[in-house]
Amino acid sequence: MTFHAGWLRRCLVSATLVVAVAAPAFAQTAPDGAKVADFSLANGMEVVVIPDHRAPIVTHMVWYKAGSADEPPGKSGIAHFFEHLMFKATTNHPAGEFDRAVAAIGGNDNAFTSYDYTAFHETVAPQALEEMMGFEADRMRNLVLTDETVATERDVIMEERRARIDNEPDALLDEAVDATLWLNQPYRIPVIGWMQEIEKLNRADARAFYDRYYAPNNAVLVVAGDVAPDAVKAMAERTYGLIPRGQDLPPRVRPVEPEQHTRRTVTLADDRVGVPSFSTRWVVPSYRTARPGEAEALDLLAEILGGGIRSRLYQELVVHKGIASSAGAVFRGRTLDDTSFAVYAAPLGKAGLADVEAAVDTEVARIGRDGVTDAELQAAKDRFVRSMIFARDRQESMANIYGSTLATGGTVRDVQEWPDRIRKVTAGEIKAAAARYLVQASSVTGYLLPQQQTEN
Amino acid sequence: MTFHAGWLRRCLVSATLVVAVAAPAFAQTAPDGAKVADFSLANGMEVVVIPDHRAPIVTHMVWYKAGSADEPPGKSGIAHFFEHLMFKATTNHPAGEFDRAVAAIGGNDNAFTSYDYTAFHETVAPQALEEMMGFEADRMRNLVLTDETVATERDVIMEERRARIDNEPDALLDEAVDATLWLNQPYRIPVIGWMQEIEKLNRADARAFYDRYYAPNNAVLVVAGDVAPDAVKAMAERTYGLIPRGQDLPPRVRPVEPEQHTRRTVTLADDRVGVPSFSTRWVVPSYRTARPGEAEALDLLAEILGGGIRSRLYQELVVHKGIASSAGAVFRGRTLDDTSFAVYAAPLGKAGLADVEAAVDTEVARIGRDGVTDAELQAAKDRFVRSMIFARDRQESMANIYGSTLATGGTVRDVQEWPDRIRKVTAGEIKAAAARYLVQASSVTGYLLPQQQTEN
Repeated sequence: MTFHAGWLRRCLVSATLVVAVAAPAFAQTAPDGAKVADFSLANGMEVVVIPDHRAPIVTHMVWYKAGSADEPPGKSGIAHFFEHLMFKATTNHPAGEFDRAVAAIGGNDNAFTSYDYTAFHETVAPQALEEMMGFEADRMRNLVLTDETVATERDVIMEERRARIDNEPDALLDEAVDATLWLNQPYRIPVIGWMQEIEKLNRADARAFYDRYYAPNNAVLVVAGDVAPDAVKAMAERTYGLIPRGQDLPPRVRPVEPEQHTRRTVTLADDRVGVPSFSTRWVVPSYRTARPGEAEALDLLAEILGGGIRSRLYQELVVHKGIASSAGAVFRGRTLDDTSFAVYAAPLGKAGLADVEAAVDTEVARIGRDGVTDAELQAAKDRFVRSMIFARDRQESMANIYGSTLATGGTVRDVQEWPDRIRKVTAGEIKAAAARYLVQASSVTGYLLPQQQTEN
Repeated sequence: MTFHAGWLRRCLVSATLVVAVAAPAFAQTAPDGAKVADFSLANGMEVVVIPDHRAPIVTHMVWYKAGSADEPPGKSGIAHFFEHLMFKATTNHPAGEFDRAVAAIGGNDNAFTSYDYTAFHETVAPQALEEMMGFEADRMRNLVLTDETVATERDVIMEERRARIDNEPDALLDEAVDATLWLNQPYRIPVIGWMQEIEKLNRADARAFYDRYYAPNNAVLVVAGDVAPDAVKAMAERTYGLIPRGQDLPPRVRPVEPEQHTRRTVTLADDRVGVPSFSTRWVVPSYRTARPGEAEALDLLAEILGGGIRSRLYQELVVHKGIASSAGAVFRGRTLDDTSFAVYAAPLGKAGLADVEAAVDTEVARIGRDGVTDAELQAAKDRFVRSMIFARDRQESMANIYGSTLATGGTVRDVQEWPDRIRKVTAGEIKAAAARYLVQASSVTGYLLPQQQTEN
């Protein structure tokens, strides 16, 4: 069953997510040199094909430009809820038939919801691609939404929230830190939704969300793998192409942040916490909202400051001082609106959280004051290039990069020009980004503490 | 000119506001014993008449059930903006004519906007009441909204925001504390609006707000003074009664708070700050959302803990210890949704902010642990009764109490039964309210610091 894994939890200490988010990796051409194709169907559905003929496998993804930040006030969680409902019966297929069809041919499928998009994907043999398109096109418009289906799935989601958030102190803290960091932007609301709002979501809410956002002209189809663009186009026209264009949606203009003037802290003490930890976050521009070059500088800043074991934070706190078990930095650049930049660490041995936080603050202040060296910058760019090679090697990574970029206001060209734009970033631009944005007076720090240590 | 004084700034250290908010005072009958009349016009406009024949004066107020918490996402400030626009030209009167008519007869007028309502009022001789009703009924539907009027007033409001918020560190902090305290409820957004949203408000936004909310069936008329209910009814029918009923609005159901699990701090350091200060706030139920008796207990809790010079905080910190120049508590009970309870203090002489905060925390913990004495409770109830007598003595206070109650989901009966409900509160209920709500692990503390003192 795949619908449990739906929502992307923002977990700063997850190394997997850090790599995936902090080092978006791109390629101008597909892995075997074939050109990426980009075209639209007559009904407005955008299609991106990334040929990759090394293995007889294809990744098929549909990205809807609708995420939790697009939800109406008081209806938090409906985007993620709807992702679940997409696995229910349609007028043509009973619930579970799509999943079983994927499993029967040895494929896998899943879906996820984030602030800015909801995506559904299957990885199968190329022969099954058109069948996948048929299933996916079917559920784009033909879901059967009954009160009973909605009520049953609502219970599943409430249990998911209890298990993944309400019973996890780090997740509860994360949620409160986001609600504190964002004074006005809807990223302040958790993707899974607030419990008191989830429990009131109903069929009318689901229907309204479906009818507004699930339409070919609000979706991007990404196909990566052992396929030819012309063949994909023909298949897409025979499946998605039959769906009528939906309503024209207004531009995705959401409430934005006011200027921030305060330093904030958020503390959660819980007896289930063994080792304390902290993270400090700032509001920074995303690739979509930044001035030219600024988001690229923030990406490299995160890489140099805390992007891995070669980073300053890791080297200083974990390797040299030996006071931290983990330390790093994260920049989430691919969002529609302004995004967050975070640093984090957890103490090791006899070191206290205050020692570790002071050491992180020192590194943050130093990089804004003194900047980075040319050698550091070159090494960070090289690491990005290497991560690109890894990404090229994974169909799903490439599909994710194109899909998330296109679903957050970017273009295929943005993806393709990204390596050049990274190469052009100067040490001065990185220093300027750190000095401008990583300012303590407008930061938010979250503290996760054992119950006995309520004072920090 | 009166339209500058529009919005109610939430200033915890304003003694005036503390008294007005913390001690709502009510009377079963009007000051001279005449009964309060409550009826509706055929178009749905509710009318409350509070006869008071001691002086030839009448207070005329119209309360619209629309405040900043009713604004659409991204349109913060439109409620207050609209209050300003109500002083512009109508199809029957040029801009300024209403104000001049009030001034010409020696009256005064004003307006204010809060989270839950917008109110307009005039105090004049009884002979002028029907003229006031005529003017007020006229602008309820006949405003002339031009692009030019809207643009000019937008500049006025942006300047108001700069002067009253952006140039005032305490106001900026207050705004950030509210945006931190409320994780989900719209009280998190300032009444005056965020600057980046105010500057985009336009005629279409104003028109939409006007057409939705400014209608007789969404308004409450309160008339207090030297008038007879029958005469008021006849005048109201000849003026407001001619306005057609507006659309039926849905119930005022807004996003509500999730459970809070974290302790948060908000710090603003500014070189314009001379003496540091702090306030700690909690989310608590309001008269509308509380279980029976709980809001009354919170009112008395605020009174005993910090309602004036007889309160525990004042006596302990200012009088006995001599470490604080001010100390108190505020409960804002008359809101449509959950509200806030606050304690605050500022150090005196050589005392540090940390000393003062610790002393406040001690008193808060003590009242939750040990409760209040019967003598304290009786004295607090007596002070409330005395504040009632003061309120009866002021027409405007009575009009405000009825208006704010009716505009936040209460009834005339709620106002009239309030003294009895206060008298029934037990010491145990006050202790329970303190223990349940004034919990450090779910509090938000704001620190206002001089620039050099960035560490607290």
